[in-house]
Amino acid sequence: MRMYDIIKKKRDGGELTTEEIDYFIKGVTDGSIPDYQITALLMAIYFRGMSVRETCDLTFAVRDSGEKLDFSAIDGIRVDKHSTGGVGDKTSLVVAPIVASFGVKVAKMSGRGLGHTGGTVDKLEAIDGFRTTLSEEEFIRQVNEIGMAIVGQSRQFAPADKKLYALRDVTATVDSMPLIAASIMGKKLAADDHCIVLDVKTGSGSFMKTVEASRELARLMVDIGKNAGKKMVALITNMDRPLGYAIGNSLEVIEAVQTLNGKGPEDFTEMCMTLAGHMLSLAGKGTPEEGKQMAVAAVADGSALQKLVETVKAQGGDPSLIEHPEKFPAAKYSHVVKSEKSGFIAHVDTEAYGLASLTLGAGRNTAEDRIDFSAGILLTKKTGDHVRAGEELATLFTGNRAAFAPAEQILLSATEITDERPLDEPLVYDIIE
Amino acid sequence: MRMYDIIKKKRDGGELTTEEIDYFIKGVTDGSIPDYQITALLMAIYFRGMSVRETCDLTFAVRDSGEKLDFSAIDGIRVDKHSTGGVGDKTSLVVAPIVASFGVKVAKMSGRGLGHTGGTVDKLEAIDGFRTTLSEEEFIRQVNEIGMAIVGQSRQFAPADKKLYALRDVTATVDSMPLIAASIMGKKLAADDHCIVLDVKTGSGSFMKTVEASRELARLMVDIGKNAGKKMVALITNMDRPLGYAIGNSLEVIEAVQTLNGKGPEDFTEMCMTLAGHMLSLAGKGTPEEGKQMAVAAVADGSALQKLVETVKAQGGDPSLIEHPEKFPAAKYSHVVKSEKSGFIAHVDTEAYGLASLTLGAGRNTAEDRIDFSAGILLTKKTGDHVRAGEELATLFTGNRAAFAPAEQILLSATEITDERPLDEPLVYDIIE
Repeated sequence: MRMYDIIKKKRDGGELTTEEIDYFIKGVTDGSIPDYQITALLMAIYFRGMSVRETCDLTFAVRDSGEKLDFSAIDGIRVDKHSTGGVGDKTSLVVAPIVASFGVKVAKMSGRGLGHTGGTVDKLEAIDGFRTTLSEEEFIRQVNEIGMAIVGQSRQFAPADKKLYALRDVTATVDSMPLIAASIMGKKLAADDHCIVLDVKTGSGSFMKTVEASRELARLMVDIGKNAGKKMVALITNMDRPLGYAIGNSLEVIEAVQTLNGKGPEDFTEMCMTLAGHMLSLAGKGTPEEGKQMAVAAVADGSALQKLVETVKAQGGDPSLIEHPEKFPAAKYSHVVKSEKSGFIAHVDTEAYGLASLTLGAGRNTAEDRIDFSAGILLTKKTGDHVRAGEELATLFTGNRAAFAPAEQILLSATEITDERPLDEPLVYDIIE
Repeated sequence: MRMYDIIKKKRDGGELTTEEIDYFIKGVTDGSIPDYQITALLMAIYFRGMSVRETCDLTFAVRDSGEKLDFSAIDGIRVDKHSTGGVGDKTSLVVAPIVASFGVKVAKMSGRGLGHTGGTVDKLEAIDGFRTTLSEEEFIRQVNEIGMAIVGQSRQFAPADKKLYALRDVTATVDSMPLIAASIMGKKLAADDHCIVLDVKTGSGSFMKTVEASRELARLMVDIGKNAGKKMVALITNMDRPLGYAIGNSLEVIEAVQTLNGKGPEDFTEMCMTLAGHMLSLAGKGTPEEGKQMAVAAVADGSALQKLVETVKAQGGDPSLIEHPEKFPAAKYSHVVKSEKSGFIAHVDTEAYGLASLTLGAGRNTAEDRIDFSAGILLTKKTGDHVRAGEELATLFTGNRAAFAPAEQILLSATEITDERPLDEPLVYDIIE
């Protein structure tokens, strides 16, 4: 087999065989295929696409390029929720304890934030003492005892994806459905869950800008997961505005806790109940609607919040922060952003909101940056709200006063105010199963 | 400027600016752009193409990536003929002396053969003592005194093309019109001629398999040359069969000399007169038809042959070989290939004929291979001829008897014999000016 022939075949619109795809990914992983041939094939795939069969093979080859997890020592049904990344998305902190409170297992490996999106692991580290690294034994024991654990990705899953992504990133070949799907699912399938609920974010705060593109990606990922023997569902959800009002690590933990107390923002609460309902449903607990009712009940009776308290305690964090979130250290400085004009908030550039939060210290530009856990944004007004000139739009928090001016500038530029009230947008655009 | 943005722009079908193309070729030449970005752009160009303006800019950037020749010390009009490469193509050995015999200057840098195509420099080296390397001073003096000189490409012209070609060759991005045109013309324009006649070979022995593709390439190259201020014409010519009957270095020199004696094969003679006519016409000597009549006259009165004798003498070769071509050393072994069946030769795979000659020792697989100058093939029958089973098709020549069996096998497989006489094909399909 020669890489040249594989490139030529794809260039001419042919369908690569399983063996050809395995040869390619093996060569990417062991370095035997030179980068200049890899990127030529990536560009040919960008133009020619891949069939579902090819995309599945690519995903499985990526998954098999490195270590895989074995969760067989965990009792019961294991379910995961995976989001494609958004702004203000603290969903995992709410849905994992809800689902675990019903005995469904959540053995979660989460990412760190980079760029405008936050990461669950960073949010958890805002809780004093919380350990996001556990040994495999500790991790499995905790999931069996409490029903859930959330740790960072300490190991090298799907190394072929890391190499491919680095090359795609510098050759304008990121925006390819089969390559995106194989990247996300190749890593996801290296974990060992029975059921996966995909949250495919759509709009100005996500990398999928249209519902049509999200639907295509969701369809592909659901098909790949099913081919790998998983129970799958994908929700196409609205990321054309931040989720909830809080952006930033401790601010988001506080909002998650409020939600588990039944006092969360309406949009975020609805999203969490819907996602948890689908997780419970996939795990065999009835229809998604029945699962949603169960989720509402687990919030109402405090069992979900109790599960989060147990998890924080088990992973070394200070549970009193969950019980009394007002104890989270406050940011050194705060600043109120006021609207420059009157009208309705018609649209916001959600990615820019994420970048404003990053500017305040809540995120990282590079993997080495340190995070200011108390930094971030608390929105006062969101899309659809009316605001008067001089009225408060948001409050900014940071330990670095110099960040206020640029963050305020970004926020104001990203907020479009018009005379007409915008149409309501759905929270969930579609469900792909 | 960032290479990423250039790749993305072309990926999305945009037209690159002159500055972007210059940045790209400069980065290719100095090594500052990594290979994986170069090949991603090449594949994007493969799919999206380039406008004539972009292709001109690419060609000029390639031309300017290395040394350029200065022929201003040569008096008079300088004309060149460039062929895209074929089998049995000894045209330069005939047209250069014809044109030079009328005082038009031919200062020719020629290539060596590689793979199934031969090279003029190799053919000349079949003449004992012939020097294909001259100093710049010697070269210019000879052209001024005799009217012509033919040497090898000793210097590093268009180094960007060398790098690009090496990458295209391993990433299935050779077959792209703008890349082919920029490669050929980038090198060609590094020489310093006033007029260029392009011979775009078409059919089974050339890399352009269809007349349509050849016409597109010819149009592009003519436009590029005109943009560079050259007088240009391109002939789309038939390479669906070998040109003449001889394939192999000394065999082809002998056939060229026969042609200059007025005793050459009909097809090859006609091709030479037509090409020489266009060269003379571009140089201001009347219409192409008038130029052709001049060429015929220069053969009839012996002045063209005399010019070749002078050239061989000036470059250190043995002129008696031209005056008495029967003196060329014969191959050690010869072998007659007989037809296995009766019928008309309907079609031949001309590239395979070239490979059979290579197998006999007449060419090189790699740049380091040594050539057996007397090796090659003398055809007895060509496309359109009738042949009886057991009748002679060709005679093979070599110093290595073991090569007969594979060469014969290739030749027979490449010769299609049918009951029906094939339709005549034109020698020149089209003229692009």
